[in-house]
Amino acid sequence: MVVTADMLVEDIDFRLDWTTPELLGHKALAVSLSDIAAMGADPKWAMISLAVSSEIWRSDFVDEFYRGWFRLAEQFQVELVGGDISRTSAGIVIDSIVGGDVRKGTAKIRAGAVAGDAIFVSGCLGGAAGGLRLLESGTGYSSDDSRNMALIERQLAPYPRVVLGKRLNAGSGVTAMIDLSDGISSDLAHICEASGVGAMINASMLPADESLEVLGVGPDEILQMALNGGEDFELLFTVDEKKLSGADLAGCTRIGSITASIGRVELISGGETSLLPARGYRHF
Amino acid sequence: MVVTADMLVEDIDFRLDWTTPELLGHKALAVSLSDIAAMGADPKWAMISLAVSSEIWRSDFVDEFYRGWFRLAEQFQVELVGGDISRTSAGIVIDSIVGGDVRKGTAKIRAGAVAGDAIFVSGCLGGAAGGLRLLESGTGYSSDDSRNMALIERQLAPYPRVVLGKRLNAGSGVTAMIDLSDGISSDLAHICEASGVGAMINASMLPADESLEVLGVGPDEILQMALNGGEDFELLFTVDEKKLSGADLAGCTRIGSITASIGRVELISGGETSLLPARGYRHF
Repeated sequence: MVVTADMLVEDIDFRLDWTTPELLGHKALAVSLSDIAAMGADPKWAMISLAVSSEIWRSDFVDEFYRGWFRLAEQFQVELVGGDISRTSAGIVIDSIVGGDVRKGTAKIRAGAVAGDAIFVSGCLGGAAGGLRLLESGTGYSSDDSRNMALIERQLAPYPRVVLGKRLNAGSGVTAMIDLSDGISSDLAHICEASGVGAMINASMLPADESLEVLGVGPDEILQMALNGGEDFELLFTVDEKKLSGADLAGCTRIGSITASIGRVELISGGETSLLPARGYRHF
Repeated sequence: MVVTADMLVEDIDFRLDWTTPELLGHKALAVSLSDIAAMGADPKWAMISLAVSSEIWRSDFVDEFYRGWFRLAEQFQVELVGGDISRTSAGIVIDSIVGGDVRKGTAKIRAGAVAGDAIFVSGCLGGAAGGLRLLESGTGYSSDDSRNMALIERQLAPYPRVVLGKRLNAGSGVTAMIDLSDGISSDLAHICEASGVGAMINASMLPADESLEVLGVGPDEILQMALNGGEDFELLFTVDEKKLSGADLAGCTRIGSITASIGRVELISGGETSLLPARGYRHF
């Protein structure tokens, strides 16, 4: 059994004027499912602890929150088994807990990467950060530009890579895995720290979200969003080089290799190699 | 497996000027262990999600909170397996999650009581409410009157009845069980509602906390505290009358019987029988 908890705090982790209660219910579950996916496990049950003000309690918020939550839960046959409701004087706090099953000894963790392993990422990067930028600039969830909406949905309604995580775990080559919640520069550093290795990634190989073009920013800024933008909830994982040929890596992109330089995460960009600082999300 | 979550919100569920971070860590775990105890289960693992301000993060709060948490966890060999840390702009929110084991099909729940069952409660009642009253009146945790401290400790450092819960579950007579978090008048109503039965309890049989004398209030007020005071975290349970003679009920007091009057909780007091309204704690 594996289990995970994620706490979301109003005005720190989400803003009610940017999202809807239904999307928030979706996201609360999605971030925890993403953790389960990163372990290669199968989500089975969940709990929600919710603290809201009396005003929110009397509104439709809770019903709509659960509607969004259940819609996603049904897709993965996740059963709500409990939780708690508390009152706050102001502000909403959500704790999302998900438990899952994985065959004993096969759960993927951050430790396990060794020098020479290939580094892969699923999907594309920076979209959630792009969506956040749009929301900050006043472009709302109901934007009629589809590329705007693609980015905003990456931010407000991330889709957890549960199916991919299980498929990767069923193969034999994955040595370490994490979900991209803070941003690659931070999350890759987490893998390196836990595994006692280093990493070298190539800027030109990073699959930046194509919708980021709508922001009208230059390639350097798009690169920064792909490297440091949090909440993409894609999977970042390492694969034993010798088992690469037999691995089913559809939908994933190789972005570099694990090195023996303990704790050093390096970026090759424009022919130059530089140290990549962890600039992803930090709570404190 | 059984699992439970309890969310504690600053200035709603606790006040920092009344307690210490260590006692708060103890209580956060204790309330969840109490839930596990009420199911007759064996607590095994736990998670803590904590949302605090930057100011609290920079203080000793988190270290001391965990010190109190671990001291209680060690007593029951409960392992911390995860959790989350989030930031708030102000105020502390704690979500305490505990998982436990129980032999399949034997977990005790609120449903299961039938007419004729005896109603029992462990320990004594109203102490936590008495402690709350002292704290509200300005008597602090460092009071030098031992009866004051007994009440205040009932409020700030409740002790979960894990050993008793497992012992009761190992016997064969318990039909329904709940822990007293809201107060008997509410928690007994929860059992009656879930079981589709009624209850009749006798005021003279209620084991009011003897330390309540220190408050200098009359017997009626002590009765109200025993009936409606929350957070005693004792076990309230029903026992099949035919299995009473074989049950090990040491430390527990019979307070009445389950009836067939669906949803009616009645109180016999001074020779009169009246309907007992659920006046325990309500979040909203």
